[in-house]
Amino acid sequence: MAGTIRILGLDPGLRRTGWGVIDVTGNRLAFVACGTVTSDDKAELGVRLAQLYRGITEVLTAWSPDEAAVEHTFVNKDATATLKLGQARGIAMVVPALAGLEVAEYEPNKVKKSIVGAGHAEKTQIHMMIGILLPKANPKTMDAADALAVAVTHAHHRTGPGRR
Amino acid sequence: MAGTIRILGLDPGLRRTGWGVIDVTGNRLAFVACGTVTSDDKAELGVRLAQLYRGITEVLTAWSPDEAAVEHTFVNKDATATLKLGQARGIAMVVPALAGLEVAEYEPNKVKKSIVGAGHAEKTQIHMMIGILLPKANPKTMDAADALAVAVTHAHHRTGPGRR
Repeated sequence: MAGTIRILGLDPGLRRTGWGVIDVTGNRLAFVACGTVTSDDKAELGVRLAQLYRGITEVLTAWSPDEAAVEHTFVNKDATATLKLGQARGIAMVVPALAGLEVAEYEPNKVKKSIVGAGHAEKTQIHMMIGILLPKANPKTMDAADALAVAVTHAHHRTGPGRR
Repeated sequence: MAGTIRILGLDPGLRRTGWGVIDVTGNRLAFVACGTVTSDDKAELGVRLAQLYRGITEVLTAWSPDEAAVEHTFVNKDATATLKLGQARGIAMVVPALAGLEVAEYEPNKVKKSIVGAGHAEKTQIHMMIGILLPKANPKTMDAADALAVAVTHAHHRTGPGRR
């Protein structure tokens, strides 16, 4: 459709990477699809990263987004957790980048503020708002809901003066 | 050559990822090639990761290694640095994994112990030993020398009882 932009949102994680696809036409948002790409936590790291790579590539092939956005989370628990997240995040960013898509990054506070209106919003508030903004969405996992929230955040920021 | 295994060592970094290729025939090590894949630090993160991905893919295509090994560094400076390293490391691991190679991981202390015989060795000692173990090697960067050290470490550990 002319004037419609398809956005892929990604919430990266080594065990589960959430993804959500929406269409944006002017101010109108429409849910397209969402889901979760998983890796086998008994496999070696290289194999797990390849599983994420192939899963995210399948999503791109199936839904042909025009732009991508990735949640920019920091893990402060420990360096091991942060390194793991970084590895998954590298895969989530490189797949759309290799396809020639611009990949935007949004910090969790920006996502919360964009969806709920407050940077300190709870996860459940985010998910409730996703249900209101995208009534046809049926995320089966928190990660898929978070990915849709990132996609909606990008929809809000890409056209306005706040675009980054 | 029958009985020869070609090993790719990688020392990942977002700005510079070192790589080194050696051939192992029994106890004999032979230098094949080494170099550095870089990313443009003015480009967006997705673009930079795609540059690393393509650069490492070129190395794999050019040298057809049988096995790969990646240095498992932790950055304790801050979470931002660790996340960046993780992203580069994800790319360094996924490229050989997608090609069907086993990707081993070695911690810096294991590399030092394997090359110099002591876990607290200095970088310069590592590089001197690389010159002795691989006399034909001509690493032009520290990262390429480190990558050769990782490849040699894997050569030492893959056949012995210490294989991991």
